[in-house]
Amino acid sequence: MTAYAVAHLRTTSAHEDVLTYIERVQDTMAPYGGRFLVHGTQVEVVEGEWPGALVMLAFPDMDSARAWYASPAYREILPLRTRHIAGDVVFAEGVPPGYDARATAAAMRAG
Amino acid sequence: MTAYAVAHLRTTSAHEDVLTYIERVQDTMAPYGGRFLVHGTQVEVVEGEWPGALVMLAFPDMDSARAWYASPAYREILPLRTRHIAGDVVFAEGVPPGYDARATAAAMRAG
Repeated sequence: MTAYAVAHLRTTSAHEDVLTYIERVQDTMAPYGGRFLVHGTQVEVVEGEWPGALVMLAFPDMDSARAWYASPAYREILPLRTRHIAGDVVFAEGVPPGYDARATAAAMRAG
Repeated sequence: MTAYAVAHLRTTSAHEDVLTYIERVQDTMAPYGGRFLVHGTQVEVVEGEWPGALVMLAFPDMDSARAWYASPAYREILPLRTRHIAGDVVFAEGVPPGYDARATAAAMRAG
């Protein structure tokens, strides 16, 4: 099942380190099938607040996402971002094919 | 271009209203081509913190996402969620086909 990485980057930066990170990140993702879904676009806040930026990546599955994040190539560039940008990053598994939200409600009712 | 809705729901609830919302939300999205990518799964926090839940939806484009959110059918059920669950919701445009993060870095360098 497709897995997603979602980053709420609370600050942004055009520091040289960050530019280098952006230049190199795609090559670290490629061996794990990772691709950008959302990158650097202005978000439209419809509820609450969202200071900063949103980045979304997709991977073929959760193991690929984890393997990318733990890879030496990514570990090498990760501090170029985290030294300059504060944020929250999560991984989440995608819903299965044919997912029906009603089934989730039914499961919650069943407790 | 695919557009995404991302919700960071800071609290969760199994209130009857919320169950009704979950039962009805998919039918409100269908006319606008909306589908769940992530729903109700436990997120794996890899940086920072993410109290609560993550929901991700995809729409064919930003206009469809906006039209869904503004639709009478969705407006009717929206309070069933927001009365019980605090959260932040944003819409964001997806990257174009063939997106290359290096081009973004180049644009940032060009100022």
